[in-house]
Amino acid sequence: MAVLCRPATEVPEHVITMDDTLAIARELHRDHPDLDLVLRLISHTGVRKRHLVQPIERTLNHPGFESRNELFLAEAKKRVPPVVRRALDHAALRVEDIDLIVFVSCTGFSMPSPTAWLINEMGFRPQTRQLPIAQLGCAAGGAAVNRAHDFCTAYPDRNALVVACEFCSLCYQPTDLGVGQLLSNGLFGDAVAAAVVRGGQDGLGVRLERNGSYLIPHTEEWISYAVRATGFHFQLDKRVPGTMEPLAPVLEELAEAHQWKVADLDFYIVHAGGPRILADLGRFLNVPAEAFRHSRDTLTEYGNIASAVVLDALGRLFEEDTALDGHRGILAGFGPGITAEVALGSWNDRRSDER
Amino acid sequence: MAVLCRPATEVPEHVITMDDTLAIARELHRDHPDLDLVLRLISHTGVRKRHLVQPIERTLNHPGFESRNELFLAEAKKRVPPVVRRALDHAALRVEDIDLIVFVSCTGFSMPSPTAWLINEMGFRPQTRQLPIAQLGCAAGGAAVNRAHDFCTAYPDRNALVVACEFCSLCYQPTDLGVGQLLSNGLFGDAVAAAVVRGGQDGLGVRLERNGSYLIPHTEEWISYAVRATGFHFQLDKRVPGTMEPLAPVLEELAEAHQWKVADLDFYIVHAGGPRILADLGRFLNVPAEAFRHSRDTLTEYGNIASAVVLDALGRLFEEDTALDGHRGILAGFGPGITAEVALGSWNDRRSDER
Repeated sequence: MAVLCRPATEVPEHVITMDDTLAIARELHRDHPDLDLVLRLISHTGVRKRHLVQPIERTLNHPGFESRNELFLAEAKKRVPPVVRRALDHAALRVEDIDLIVFVSCTGFSMPSPTAWLINEMGFRPQTRQLPIAQLGCAAGGAAVNRAHDFCTAYPDRNALVVACEFCSLCYQPTDLGVGQLLSNGLFGDAVAAAVVRGGQDGLGVRLERNGSYLIPHTEEWISYAVRATGFHFQLDKRVPGTMEPLAPVLEELAEAHQWKVADLDFYIVHAGGPRILADLGRFLNVPAEAFRHSRDTLTEYGNIASAVVLDALGRLFEEDTALDGHRGILAGFGPGITAEVALGSWNDRRSDER
Repeated sequence: MAVLCRPATEVPEHVITMDDTLAIARELHRDHPDLDLVLRLISHTGVRKRHLVQPIERTLNHPGFESRNELFLAEAKKRVPPVVRRALDHAALRVEDIDLIVFVSCTGFSMPSPTAWLINEMGFRPQTRQLPIAQLGCAAGGAAVNRAHDFCTAYPDRNALVVACEFCSLCYQPTDLGVGQLLSNGLFGDAVAAAVVRGGQDGLGVRLERNGSYLIPHTEEWISYAVRATGFHFQLDKRVPGTMEPLAPVLEELAEAHQWKVADLDFYIVHAGGPRILADLGRFLNVPAEAFRHSRDTLTEYGNIASAVVLDALGRLFEEDTALDGHRGILAGFGPGITAEVALGSWNDRRSDER
């Protein structure tokens, strides 16, 4: 038994609105043969604004992979600890109570993993297990929750911390001019999110009951990085927005294995990669659009913040304060592979000493 | 309960001997102020030969990060499946029986993770969980075994596959001229290793009983990658060979928590990062040098093959065929952080239908 406690999210201070994004695209790509299509696609994302770790002028300038990656680490060191502290507070736990840190990020790379720094900086115990995941992209938010759940299933009195640190703007590549890449430039945002998975039965949050993973066969090329001297180049195939058609049955089957009906759940926290994911999921699962309001709000307010989406959207469910003990729900991350990482759980209102 | 079954290892066909290595170092660095020291350090590694994915002439030529990384993936696709097939055979399991793939590698990067390709290529079930780890370096062999153990503890009827794919020669950086870097050029080798962690009580191998992790405080800088346009640059601090002094008590404490004495075990499978690690461990744990013969043989025959060392050394214990049911042992990976990932287990000779 384990409870996914209230997540904390922070977004950086540099804001770029949809209007800014469209103006920049018009300016930078005025001679692009598909400019109108790109502008239309960006308009349809529904992303009202995004938050970036540095001003847009600096974001648009590529100083080289090394500088970019150093900036990633500097920003992570600045921005992760306060979010982790809030996540621990939400779970009424201290650093000493954490046995596993799952740190997911696909927008910067380091060895040692940022977990080593975090343990030293925040005073986690040297015995804390480190699980850094860099290669699951947007699906890593769901994967992090699921691996933390597995860990607490193996060791029911232990606790895990999940951190998603995504500065997608640091993967902006000025020379990438494909339609999917220009769309991505208008879609992704920066954020840090964290949450505690508390072992045992106490805690306010989602009691994790079952998880599953699914790889849509032979879709490896649909979402990928080209790894180059200039860093990670995001590549998005136009078939990606259609992936909810094969994935909706996966969510249904997992719910059925748990004797639940996916259409009848009380809350839906899904990765809002783009607006069509939410529209299609509603259609294929026969769930009203309203059900995805938290994921949609994340997309609208912050853009696609990769692995942090599901944590931020879950935070909005807590904020709304409508979930009741026993309410059943689903949490699903989607990303490269094409991979889905799905969790089923019930709202757990055993607050014990949580703040 | 879970049993770590017999690992499979393959090393590539291009062999470089210690004499070759010394001759190349003399030739390339004839004006280096510390050449004599470097030659002495390389001589003392005890590495008799190493196996590389391409001839040494091509290895010494850096074609750029992008080409290097593409070569990593091409070689992984060629070399991983046969090793995985042998590991599955050793465990008497089929691809359909695997529920989790832990894929560790710090010498190439991709998104999606190679797990997606492997699932498609070898016909693993789409529901197979993917756990790629790129940021734990040489400690990742121990971490992979431990996370597979945790998974089988959570789900006792499930099985996990562990794969370590390390082509260290593809991180050779001709412009890196520090003493630690030149030593590393003479130390690291290429290999693929794999093993199954079988849920339940059946299987010939190590019944995994307890695991633990330890980060030596404030040693993040001692082993690290500089991430640059030219790829990953390995940086080795001269304090690293001394790390067994603080880590030996960690192994002792884990054994004590299990009511074992670390000096009295029947087998020792440890990461052979270099010869001093083995010598110091023997000294600080009060264990004869002979106890580390399998790890030493891996180092002598293949060099430091990073996360694959512990799997290959364990394979040599199987090969030796001296372990008896109930024999107690330890498996320990060491790497950046500085991190130790340690497992305790007993030899399990319930062969059921293993081949």
